[in-house]
Amino acid sequence: MSKNDKVQPRILPGFMELLPEEQIAFNRMFDTIRRVYERYGFLPLDTATIELSDVLLAKAGGETEKQIYRFQKGDNDLSLRFDLTVPLARYVAQHAGELTFPFKRYQMSKVFRGERPQKGRFREFYQCDIDVIGSETLDIVYDAEMPAVIYNVFKELAFGAFTIRMNNRKVLNGYFAELGYSDKIGDILRTIDKLEKIGRDAVMEELEKFEVAKADAEKILSFLSFRGTNDETIAVLRAQGIANETYNQGVEELATVVSYLRLFGVEESAFIIDLTIARGLDYYTGTVFETMLNDYPSMGSVCSGGRYDNLAEYYTDQKLPGIGISIGLTRLFFQLRENGLITTNGACLARCLVIPMGEGQLGSALTAASAIRGAGIPADVYCQNKGMKQKMKYAAKIGVPFAAIIGEDEAASGTVMLKDMATGEQRAVSVSELADAVR
Amino acid sequence: MSKNDKVQPRILPGFMELLPEEQIAFNRMFDTIRRVYERYGFLPLDTATIELSDVLLAKAGGETEKQIYRFQKGDNDLSLRFDLTVPLARYVAQHAGELTFPFKRYQMSKVFRGERPQKGRFREFYQCDIDVIGSETLDIVYDAEMPAVIYNVFKELAFGAFTIRMNNRKVLNGYFAELGYSDKIGDILRTIDKLEKIGRDAVMEELEKFEVAKADAEKILSFLSFRGTNDETIAVLRAQGIANETYNQGVEELATVVSYLRLFGVEESAFIIDLTIARGLDYYTGTVFETMLNDYPSMGSVCSGGRYDNLAEYYTDQKLPGIGISIGLTRLFFQLRENGLITTNGACLARCLVIPMGEGQLGSALTAASAIRGAGIPADVYCQNKGMKQKMKYAAKIGVPFAAIIGEDEAASGTVMLKDMATGEQRAVSVSELADAVR
Repeated sequence: MSKNDKVQPRILPGFMELLPEEQIAFNRMFDTIRRVYERYGFLPLDTATIELSDVLLAKAGGETEKQIYRFQKGDNDLSLRFDLTVPLARYVAQHAGELTFPFKRYQMSKVFRGERPQKGRFREFYQCDIDVIGSETLDIVYDAEMPAVIYNVFKELAFGAFTIRMNNRKVLNGYFAELGYSDKIGDILRTIDKLEKIGRDAVMEELEKFEVAKADAEKILSFLSFRGTNDETIAVLRAQGIANETYNQGVEELATVVSYLRLFGVEESAFIIDLTIARGLDYYTGTVFETMLNDYPSMGSVCSGGRYDNLAEYYTDQKLPGIGISIGLTRLFFQLRENGLITTNGACLARCLVIPMGEGQLGSALTAASAIRGAGIPADVYCQNKGMKQKMKYAAKIGVPFAAIIGEDEAASGTVMLKDMATGEQRAVSVSELADAVR
Repeated sequence: MSKNDKVQPRILPGFMELLPEEQIAFNRMFDTIRRVYERYGFLPLDTATIELSDVLLAKAGGETEKQIYRFQKGDNDLSLRFDLTVPLARYVAQHAGELTFPFKRYQMSKVFRGERPQKGRFREFYQCDIDVIGSETLDIVYDAEMPAVIYNVFKELAFGAFTIRMNNRKVLNGYFAELGYSDKIGDILRTIDKLEKIGRDAVMEELEKFEVAKADAEKILSFLSFRGTNDETIAVLRAQGIANETYNQGVEELATVVSYLRLFGVEESAFIIDLTIARGLDYYTGTVFETMLNDYPSMGSVCSGGRYDNLAEYYTDQKLPGIGISIGLTRLFFQLRENGLITTNGACLARCLVIPMGEGQLGSALTAASAIRGAGIPADVYCQNKGMKQKMKYAAKIGVPFAAIIGEDEAASGTVMLKDMATGEQRAVSVSELADAVR
């Protein structure tokens, strides 16, 4: 082919592709999340990427539907999944007879949304979801298990202090019903949400527009913005003297979740009741969560979720209450990288690069590498026919921790010259001790 | 919603979705393959699922193009990847300046082909690929590293004896050129391929149709069907007295790969030179592989690949020779399951299910589970408010190895009643020793 025939290698904006050293860091996060999910007994699921449109979009509409990658293939109207919750609903409805409830599953897969690309928004991104689905009922202990899992995930990810903010939709629904604003919950919450940004006066003004009486607006503002310890908040909620049943049920659920969270061993500093948290107004019905990295509030919530009454009502009459959380890993990784929090250790998984000085030492090099691999430790052998200078340059470039150099003498004596690439120190090590030396 | 409004939950045929216990077995295979790939120093890559059609299909045509899931979104003509090699070529061409060569990468991702669905053929399936890409040159040692990796993968997967069949396209090309049939290599090989199925006479007849002289046909048949040890085959290849340079280069490459394979520690019984192996006639240029499970020849090749001269010629002038192999994991899993080789241990990753007898023991149960999880061992707690009988039934159904039952006495004494679910044996174990007891 002539140069002019070449197709420019490129992808669409909004798709995250990483260089190997970043991919290693990404996978480390992915593996950590998966490990914690599995440690809590969640089972793996891997649903189809391509769904039938009439099934996938049974509920969707509006903005969601516009973002779908939808296409015809043969006689089939198909769509790429846009989240992992709808496929879960479809899967559970389809296989309800073969599953054991409560059904705890995790899925960590890519989802697809044809959004207008902008910084930090992706058209293809990983969601890391866990959900517990009950048949008919699901105990409130599971509402506490969710933040316990989040707590362990973010502790192990080790990106600094974080706070799980928790609320209960019943508290909000009941409170606003008591004041006579059942039909305005969404408007009020969205307005309150801007408090930090636009200030108290502007919020009051806006609430007035929604026909909230001034006295009520002041009451709401002071109610929602209460900040105290979890026990204080619960005490204040109980002391409101509100008769609404939903409200009181929500307060007791919050209190129960808080007490269970302590039993799960979650540090008190890591979770706080925050009455302004509402999450997806149409969907959630009880406990809701958001998670903030304390030092990076501008990232927004890095893990959210909540309780829902009925997972799969579009597919089955079986009542399937559940609770779930989701980590948008692609976006999280992007934000962490933007904030300089992703540390890479070179484009290398191998602990040691074995370098034969000449072709005559290749056999010894392969044997040395096998000794390391035999201990379950990744190792690589440099096999290109180049000069020693270029071989060492390669080792430095990929960022491997150790280089094991084998010349004629080393090959003859069953040793390697082991170089610590960070310090430059070299020492002779026998092949039989090599795995331990690079571990 | 009324019952009649329900959408039937279903997916298209040709998509593999597994029940949790099967998914666990699938993931175990996936993780084993990934672990071996990483142990040999291959770096992870995760390219976009959706590619620009003009980039992805720069080379494609014919059957491949018909199978593509291709669609328009906004102004963009998009396609789902149909393999992992074209995206690798695009990625390497796009990022050549940022990569270190030789570039060893693995990718284990789903690919998509809109095939007519039939048993064992999938429209969405995992490929598990490794490739080593050189810049300008790539040493032949890497040709031996590929079967060494295959060897370790299938040893660890432990589905019985297997054979890596190996050939070199240069041997075939040179041999047929010497006989004057350079332009008929494809026809001849496809015919020879049917030898076992249609018999020697029918093959002779068909070769005649391709205007292969009878004497030549006999010569070819006896040449290709030679079976001996690897050393014998090499000796016979060298003794043919063929002057063709390509042929002799191919023979020496085969001999070199065999000698290196021994250095890699691959057992002689696991690889054999088989001159009938050709693989993807247009693509490969040197060493080629197939892998058979000895006891299940009807499965066909479970891992194939080979050497190619130039990975990304459609995207760049940079010469990028490489070698790669691929395991079609979805198909392999399906075939293994069909042959009864997939063993599942219940829908459970947890080693122990902690069961509080009543709500009063929930705290103790959560503490016990934390003790197990703290040792890195998956554990679960049964939190639904049901009778003991139903709780034990749940434990039996999910197939968990141990149940740790906590009543009032156990809670008071900091112990659990640990039940081995397989034997039914029960014994009191202190919470501090619980992790070790269930490990």
